[in-house]
Amino acid sequence: MYTFKELVQIFAEKFTVSHFPQYPATLYDPCDYFLTLGGKRIRPVMCLMGNELFNDISPDAYPVATAIELFHNFTLIHDDIMDAASLRRGMVTVHKKYGSNTAILSGDVMLLRSYDYLNEINSLHLKSILALFNKTAKEVCEGQQLDMDFEQQEAVSLDDYIKMITLKTSVLLAASLEMGAILGGASEGSCRHLYEFGKNLGIAFQIQDDYLDAFGDPKKFGKEVGGDIRQNKKTFLLIHALSVASPQQKDKLLKIMETNPPDKVEQVLAIFKEYQVDIWANQLKATYLEIAMKHLEDIAVISARKKPLMELADFLIQRDY
Amino acid sequence: MYTFKELVQIFAEKFTVSHFPQYPATLYDPCDYFLTLGGKRIRPVMCLMGNELFNDISPDAYPVATAIELFHNFTLIHDDIMDAASLRRGMVTVHKKYGSNTAILSGDVMLLRSYDYLNEINSLHLKSILALFNKTAKEVCEGQQLDMDFEQQEAVSLDDYIKMITLKTSVLLAASLEMGAILGGASEGSCRHLYEFGKNLGIAFQIQDDYLDAFGDPKKFGKEVGGDIRQNKKTFLLIHALSVASPQQKDKLLKIMETNPPDKVEQVLAIFKEYQVDIWANQLKATYLEIAMKHLEDIAVISARKKPLMELADFLIQRDY
Repeated sequence: MYTFKELVQIFAEKFTVSHFPQYPATLYDPCDYFLTLGGKRIRPVMCLMGNELFNDISPDAYPVATAIELFHNFTLIHDDIMDAASLRRGMVTVHKKYGSNTAILSGDVMLLRSYDYLNEINSLHLKSILALFNKTAKEVCEGQQLDMDFEQQEAVSLDDYIKMITLKTSVLLAASLEMGAILGGASEGSCRHLYEFGKNLGIAFQIQDDYLDAFGDPKKFGKEVGGDIRQNKKTFLLIHALSVASPQQKDKLLKIMETNPPDKVEQVLAIFKEYQVDIWANQLKATYLEIAMKHLEDIAVISARKKPLMELADFLIQRDY
Repeated sequence: MYTFKELVQIFAEKFTVSHFPQYPATLYDPCDYFLTLGGKRIRPVMCLMGNELFNDISPDAYPVATAIELFHNFTLIHDDIMDAASLRRGMVTVHKKYGSNTAILSGDVMLLRSYDYLNEINSLHLKSILALFNKTAKEVCEGQQLDMDFEQQEAVSLDDYIKMITLKTSVLLAASLEMGAILGGASEGSCRHLYEFGKNLGIAFQIQDDYLDAFGDPKKFGKEVGGDIRQNKKTFLLIHALSVASPQQKDKLLKIMETNPPDKVEQVLAIFKEYQVDIWANQLKATYLEIAMKHLEDIAVISARKKPLMELADFLIQRDY
């Protein structure tokens, strides 16, 4: 068996090939460009890990992992257009570099290319892999649409926010693991537990991401804190604060968000602290992490095989703050 | 066997169902809206016809036909964004009605939905159908990109223009027929002939479309002539005229295109006539139609089964002008 880090290395080597023809360069160069921006390749590695949990890695796991990574990059190219984002991983986004029209079309063709890779696998699992891939891909689109909708809405409930985050980010993590498991011949029960492990781990990760943006140690977090607060971004923290604050403090919070005072971050953080939003967030994260780990425990394979998934959980959820 | 018109009716009835869930309405309402704008549903009917050429219509032909029509509509939604088109079939386009971001995402999800339908078919043909569908879908994207590229280029050769048109429109017609044939158990040779029939018929249709826009009888054509000329659109006619005109007449043509005089259409048509571009276009169309019909002849089934495809050719290529 491979460690999590070894699998990252193995996939990176396999993925560093050209996935597109050269002509027309105006269509395919943007695709190549975007893939060179890198990324942690977490999702395809999760596919390999889900596969190796049950058996030696199947040759089919690599094309499926590749399809997942191409799909993920397609969503990023299109999301960057929708978010009018100029930078991605410190580099110019596709629509800024090549124009929105080409970014739409290059994203489309990257999505289509992912289905080429899916079609490489043994017929035995093709239908179930396609079914899960399609379902998940549509859910990711639904999550992105809800995210855009919520940005226009004044009030969003915690349940709705969790639903959105689950669709937008967690289901792809969950499905990546499950696709690996399907190829590994796992039972339906094991597939379900592995999916729920990935889904809940993803939600815990997102809560942590929101937490760190507000309360992280800038030295360890690697970027300035308060970015979400400055942008009035709806996060776990803000949604919870708005739901538990007194009417006066809620009005104050909304006013700060509207007027953007110079000490906006400090003021918002003070209100968060007043309502112990930081403690609440850590507890909520722990709850989801616990659910995730329970599902991992309930998969009927020997514990040694679960080690890379434990490493993954440790990698995603830093306990060090 | 069904006539072409009967198949149009049969498919229309099957297709008039909801293809999307209700939630989130902000994502799926635009999809439903666009499908209600109608369309001739030529491509899915071609799939049914390609299928019935070899056998009674297979139950698998309907989901594949549906996937083709959803794919086609996905391309239209995204193309309308790229072309900044306000109207489609006399109705407001998706991006004008719901915004570009939602149009991108609704198009994406419509494409994904087409793969659900493909996944409904018997495993026996799934791999070959997916392979042809994916290849064709990428080619359509390549054609759209080349079309956008050519609009920025001053000179485009006839060969390049034919290549672009083939990718952008003809290969989907060809593949629709071939997917039907694959499901009908046709031989590789028959599949190839049917594909070439569709491809060449598509090119002939496009030449006719360009011809009618310039030389059509407005009463029969159903819209004002000269639209392409007014917009300086690259067409078979313009590309040929620029390649055969004398240096002086070529300069004159380019000047008219640049200055947009009130009698622009008349002036351009006069130059087209001077170089017999109309006669040339009709001959070119006849050449492609002949190639198409030769391929249809070379398919080893009794002539009676080919009748609907003859009707299709007659429907697409009006000889009445």
